[in-house]
Amino acid sequence: MIRLYVPHDLAAGAHLALDEGQSRYLSAVMRQAVGDTLAVFNGRDGEWRAAITTVGKRGVTLTALDSTRPQHIGPDLDLIVALVKRGRLETIVEKATELGARRVRLVSTERTNADHVRLDRLRAIAMEAAEQTGRLDVPEIAGPTKLDRLLADWNPARRLLFCDEGGNAPTVLDAVTTPGSWGILIGPEGGFSPAERDHLRALPYATPATLGPRILRADTAAISALTLWQAAVGDWR
Amino acid sequence: MIRLYVPHDLAAGAHLALDEGQSRYLSAVMRQAVGDTLAVFNGRDGEWRAAITTVGKRGVTLTALDSTRPQHIGPDLDLIVALVKRGRLETIVEKATELGARRVRLVSTERTNADHVRLDRLRAIAMEAAEQTGRLDVPEIAGPTKLDRLLADWNPARRLLFCDEGGNAPTVLDAVTTPGSWGILIGPEGGFSPAERDHLRALPYATPATLGPRILRADTAAISALTLWQAAVGDWR
Repeated sequence: MIRLYVPHDLAAGAHLALDEGQSRYLSAVMRQAVGDTLAVFNGRDGEWRAAITTVGKRGVTLTALDSTRPQHIGPDLDLIVALVKRGRLETIVEKATELGARRVRLVSTERTNADHVRLDRLRAIAMEAAEQTGRLDVPEIAGPTKLDRLLADWNPARRLLFCDEGGNAPTVLDAVTTPGSWGILIGPEGGFSPAERDHLRALPYATPATLGPRILRADTAAISALTLWQAAVGDWR
Repeated sequence: MIRLYVPHDLAAGAHLALDEGQSRYLSAVMRQAVGDTLAVFNGRDGEWRAAITTVGKRGVTLTALDSTRPQHIGPDLDLIVALVKRGRLETIVEKATELGARRVRLVSTERTNADHVRLDRLRAIAMEAAEQTGRLDVPEIAGPTKLDRLLADWNPARRLLFCDEGGNAPTVLDAVTTPGSWGILIGPEGGFSPAERDHLRALPYATPATLGPRILRADTAAISALTLWQAAVGDWR
């Protein structure tokens, strides 16, 4: 079943004029024709079955038929990730979407040597991953902030799990025992600086955790931490 | 600290003539010179500190100085993975190495539409990932077998976790409660066929498990399942 994220409001009989990319995908790539049906969602109105009503030079239009799933949003989980190399950052966004993060927030840290980041590209990856994984929303991708700034503005009601290989941190399953609003912070490949680690460890809402005895790349750490969080207190229980 | 996997036996004073690729990596990429030290391991003799003794046209030679870690091997965990697209298969091999799988075994299933697989390339990825993650062994990459054949030859003393989205499977944390020898089987993106699923469900040593409410790509499923296994009964406890 083809699934598309659309910006339009969804209701029975709503007409949806798709953009050029989605029109080309449906007609040229997936060889869909007038009368074929697919699933659409917009992050607000649940999932709808829609039929292709026109395929023309000006694009593809759909008509929404009926609601197939009510709107649902997963746990209130943010992934905060230091800017890492482009390929790994794209993997992280795809996987965070599949693993049910509600938002991905990019940060720069002392040991981040980030080149520029293509937010439009990351958002397209999140949208495509949401379509594929069956979510009814697309995670927000928030542009880079400095870690200091992010922590200065942090709502202390949201807990923060950070992966800290230094010393005696508990496992994620031992560190994450209560549901609610959380953020998971993944540092750059070079790790946090000693000053950043001290700062994080002193925050009352922050919990360190270890991810096993081997050194993990940032994308692996992000995927593993999201998985364990979902298994511990999220929608994998 | 640079770490290299080498085929040579390691003992104090052993001379190691590196191959062309590793020689070039040390001299041209990492700009190492005579007297610089690095870590080497061979999967048998633990980790050793070694010094560069010559850098020449015929390559780089090292001399092993002293043992820094005794040989250690992680849990007896195999990842069995259906052939998926090249990029995702390469991700799976890299991540299985970081996440401590002892072997990666490739299988073809009814819904696998595999093109050929480059075992040499997958083995190079496993070696590089082992160097980076701090392991003292490189996971074996076993070439493709048919799933039927693999199961016909299975040692029933090894348990098998397979990810089954159909129906009422328990979570991985509920399904994996005893340590020992395990395999984790990840199907192709199209899933197992009904016949394959029935076959797997009937095996006395096999346990189905679910990976949450969303559809995961094969690489995500592999990483998540390995992570949960390590957290439940492996070396992440």
